[in-house]
Amino acid sequence: MSAPENSGTADLITLAAEAQDQLFREGRTANTFTDEPVSEAQFRAVYELIKFGPTSLNQQPLRVVLVRSQEARDRLVPLMTGRNQEKTSKAPLVAVLGADLDFHEELPRLVPFMDDPQALFADPAARAESAKFNTAIQIGYFILGVRAAGLAAGPMIGFDREGVTKEFFPDGRHAPLCVVNIGKPGPDAWMGRLPRLAYDEVVTSV
Amino acid sequence: MSAPENSGTADLITLAAEAQDQLFREGRTANTFTDEPVSEAQFRAVYELIKFGPTSLNQQPLRVVLVRSQEARDRLVPLMTGRNQEKTSKAPLVAVLGADLDFHEELPRLVPFMDDPQALFADPAARAESAKFNTAIQIGYFILGVRAAGLAAGPMIGFDREGVTKEFFPDGRHAPLCVVNIGKPGPDAWMGRLPRLAYDEVVTSV
Repeated sequence: MSAPENSGTADLITLAAEAQDQLFREGRTANTFTDEPVSEAQFRAVYELIKFGPTSLNQQPLRVVLVRSQEARDRLVPLMTGRNQEKTSKAPLVAVLGADLDFHEELPRLVPFMDDPQALFADPAARAESAKFNTAIQIGYFILGVRAAGLAAGPMIGFDREGVTKEFFPDGRHAPLCVVNIGKPGPDAWMGRLPRLAYDEVVTSV
Repeated sequence: MSAPENSGTADLITLAAEAQDQLFREGRTANTFTDEPVSEAQFRAVYELIKFGPTSLNQQPLRVVLVRSQEARDRLVPLMTGRNQEKTSKAPLVAVLGADLDFHEELPRLVPFMDDPQALFADPAARAESAKFNTAIQIGYFILGVRAAGLAAGPMIGFDREGVTKEFFPDGRHAPLCVVNIGKPGPDAWMGRLPRLAYDEVVTSV
């Protein structure tokens, strides 16, 4: 099950091999899905798991809009780019993942040991950068959380940012970063695994 | 083992409960570590697992500098902020995680089905934004990968960006985003779990 280059290293991971496979080695980005719906309870279970993933200063800026109604789907699909339109029109569940650019308003109760944590994020540009950084980390948790539920994720960044903001985050305090199709993988759900960078291309020691 | 608010949802996750605990519910950000070293083989095993996590257009912009020598540690510690100095001076292994701002140079072999993928990233500002976004997603995978190895991670963003860039990415084509202490958790490794946002604060349906 492991790729050849893993031989000799997988036993250094204490996480069960089946879990490694489900989350990383066999988990794949899906382009097609079956018709089986994703229940609210199942999606809630994903959140109740991934909410524990750490963010800097416990910021938790990720916000999710679940596109459940046909009316909302009809507003989203034309804003997707190229082939993402068809994928998004057919997926059982579509989630728009955005960053709360005013996440700092929640900090007094999220970091109760700090005096005035909001003051650290008074600058809107620095706050937006922090919101997007930590939301992206949470997107990593989210994709693995979807896989943990036995589902496949199809994350996409190809969409009209301004249009999705206007349609799905009209309050002007959120930035959409990713749209994710979610469901059980369908026929020909993915292409062959694309190459990964070798360890020595990514990691150096000093 | 689960927090009370998880009751009734954890069984909707097909990943083994022990794996859920190890990665999310019991995994914690560590502030102290034992003296037990983290071997090159063990760190390599983490990479060989998390490399499979998806990035947009298979960009894989994450680059890692492992601070192995005392000389390098002595250069890093003064660049950390406040209490991060002591934590970083004592951790068995310290990894500087950065974004390769010129990741697009690798794309012809990472997305071999595309004609001229580099052309999509000709603009340096847009390329840097994409590099940082995907690196942050990979930081999410990285933190969970460290936990998958039975280790604890202590990710920190409090450090002198310019100084760390100069000392650890002197080629000018990388941006450090996070420094992570890695090892077996030591005495009083963490404080009590901080609050998490409730599902209904994060997720809305339309």
